[in-house]
Amino acid sequence: MQLAVAAQAELDQKTKPRRSLGRLEQLAVQIAAVRGTIRPAPLAAAVVVAAADHGYAANQVSAYPQQVTAQMLQTAAAGGAAISVLARQAPARLVLVDVGLLHPLRHPNIRSLRIAAGTRDATHGPAMTKPQTLRALAAGSALARELAADGISLLAPGEIGIGNTTAASALTAAMLGLPPRAVCGRGTGLDDAGLRRKIATVEAALAANSTSAAPPLETLAALGGLEIAFLTGAILGAAANKQLIVLDGLVVAAAALIAARLAPDCSGYLIAAHRSPEPGHRHLLEALQLEPLLQWQLRLGEASGAALTLPLIHAAAALLSEMATFESAGVSDSGR
Amino acid sequence: MQLAVAAQAELDQKTKPRRSLGRLEQLAVQIAAVRGTIRPAPLAAAVVVAAADHGYAANQVSAYPQQVTAQMLQTAAAGGAAISVLARQAPARLVLVDVGLLHPLRHPNIRSLRIAAGTRDATHGPAMTKPQTLRALAAGSALARELAADGISLLAPGEIGIGNTTAASALTAAMLGLPPRAVCGRGTGLDDAGLRRKIATVEAALAANSTSAAPPLETLAALGGLEIAFLTGAILGAAANKQLIVLDGLVVAAAALIAARLAPDCSGYLIAAHRSPEPGHRHLLEALQLEPLLQWQLRLGEASGAALTLPLIHAAAALLSEMATFESAGVSDSGR
Repeated sequence: MQLAVAAQAELDQKTKPRRSLGRLEQLAVQIAAVRGTIRPAPLAAAVVVAAADHGYAANQVSAYPQQVTAQMLQTAAAGGAAISVLARQAPARLVLVDVGLLHPLRHPNIRSLRIAAGTRDATHGPAMTKPQTLRALAAGSALARELAADGISLLAPGEIGIGNTTAASALTAAMLGLPPRAVCGRGTGLDDAGLRRKIATVEAALAANSTSAAPPLETLAALGGLEIAFLTGAILGAAANKQLIVLDGLVVAAAALIAARLAPDCSGYLIAAHRSPEPGHRHLLEALQLEPLLQWQLRLGEASGAALTLPLIHAAAALLSEMATFESAGVSDSGR
Repeated sequence: MQLAVAAQAELDQKTKPRRSLGRLEQLAVQIAAVRGTIRPAPLAAAVVVAAADHGYAANQVSAYPQQVTAQMLQTAAAGGAAISVLARQAPARLVLVDVGLLHPLRHPNIRSLRIAAGTRDATHGPAMTKPQTLRALAAGSALARELAADGISLLAPGEIGIGNTTAASALTAAMLGLPPRAVCGRGTGLDDAGLRRKIATVEAALAANSTSAAPPLETLAALGGLEIAFLTGAILGAAANKQLIVLDGLVVAAAALIAARLAPDCSGYLIAAHRSPEPGHRHLLEALQLEPLLQWQLRLGEASGAALTLPLIHAAAALLSEMATFESAGVSDSGR
């Protein structure tokens, strides 16, 4: 908190009208507080995309068939997915992780940290076992620690998983006590009948698992999925290692809310890249008290929205480190 | 228009749910239309900051003294201004131009394209003569053409000029037929008394010059300023040379509206980087029918908001050129 005050005081000495860079100054203050200095070194960014399959897919809750999870991870590894392009542009290191595809995928650009071959269908009972959940959390946390040791100070977690907005919507409904119809959206492009199936699936998952007032980890285990548990661990690990964490859409925000319930202090490390059209995302950002940087109707996932905003965060850090002050530049101040 | 349709069709074949990248896809479509290809080469960006002094300053309409115009241009040239940092980050070539400082400023990083030693106080009659206005327009247009010949395809025009939000507010009121109190804002940080002086100054400028139903160039000459005329020319020149133009705040938007009144076709080349807290900016963006990329309470000027968004525009172009299609990647489409 003291660092936030010092960073704002430093920004107020820079050659610009006070607070005239609005949201960019707020970002700079947060960076200073997280990195523990008002002259942060340039941030080094990594995008971590965790892929896993979901038992929910049996309920036809996606516009795409289940094999698309593996196909999209493969496309990302080959450099042709949206996140491949956006990570190159950022630029950011791209780390692709198989946390639980139905069938293992071997590729030099894919890390295998497999916990299980997908989740079970939560409409019939818990999606994951408690040990699976804990192992996925630990794997995510370990990866964040490894990246921090390698100099990464800015993390953009993301996901690939057909059916995972259903899991995230179920988690959102359970954690925030909201009815499924208030949180479910069209995901990657469901039609009206698909959206009705999705809502019914979330209702069935909540009915099959007693999640009301359950501790966060039990809710996570009950509703899935493996990549959400992994991302929860990555967010906790990143915060523990003083990394700034840029949140993408609904699925990552659900992981962030679990992380914040487990360790409230990690909230200060979170930046919301954007707000998607998914109704549940708005509720999650409100619960996390995060104001999104963009409102661009992004709903792809893969950390694409988060990767897009990395240059904005770099710019905020550079203001603190590189801008002249009124005094150093010999510019007349307004006298306030 | 045909290219816009072709670009959206190309985006719809990329490995992502259709339209799932929202505003980013709209940017990509606009880039394709302006550059005349659905596989645009990486854009090369330049930030052009035009500085000039204003006779309005005699009415105490700024929180800063008039010498700050030259001091800030000097600071930008020395690399310590916000725009110095943000142009390095983007990255973009930074072109600083003295269009009409009160006193010439010699620095290897400053281009001298001086038209006059500031404008006259428009509350007593025209701020500029017609020949001054035309020379400033021509100089801006020539610079855009020169940059285009040098490979620049993305232009972020900006300004430095104590008193220039008063000029821009007067132009906005005159062109849109709005009362001064509806367009004037606090600029770089006026207090209540300062804001009242600013509104009275705009009222006096409108009363001293008969601008109602005047042609755009006469309104521009009457209300100033030199850098606004220069930026109007830069915008016209950029559009004529197939450059994308990223608009910063109120002052640049006023120049853009004059440009659009002179040559309506240039509207398709414009991107609004952000919407500032200046009330007049909202009116200008509505008149230009532009949806801002950011709403970050930016009110610095110097093209700072525009420079900030350049990486977002590069990302949009890269999607078109670099993303795989469903077919090329062997990914199952949703069948729609």
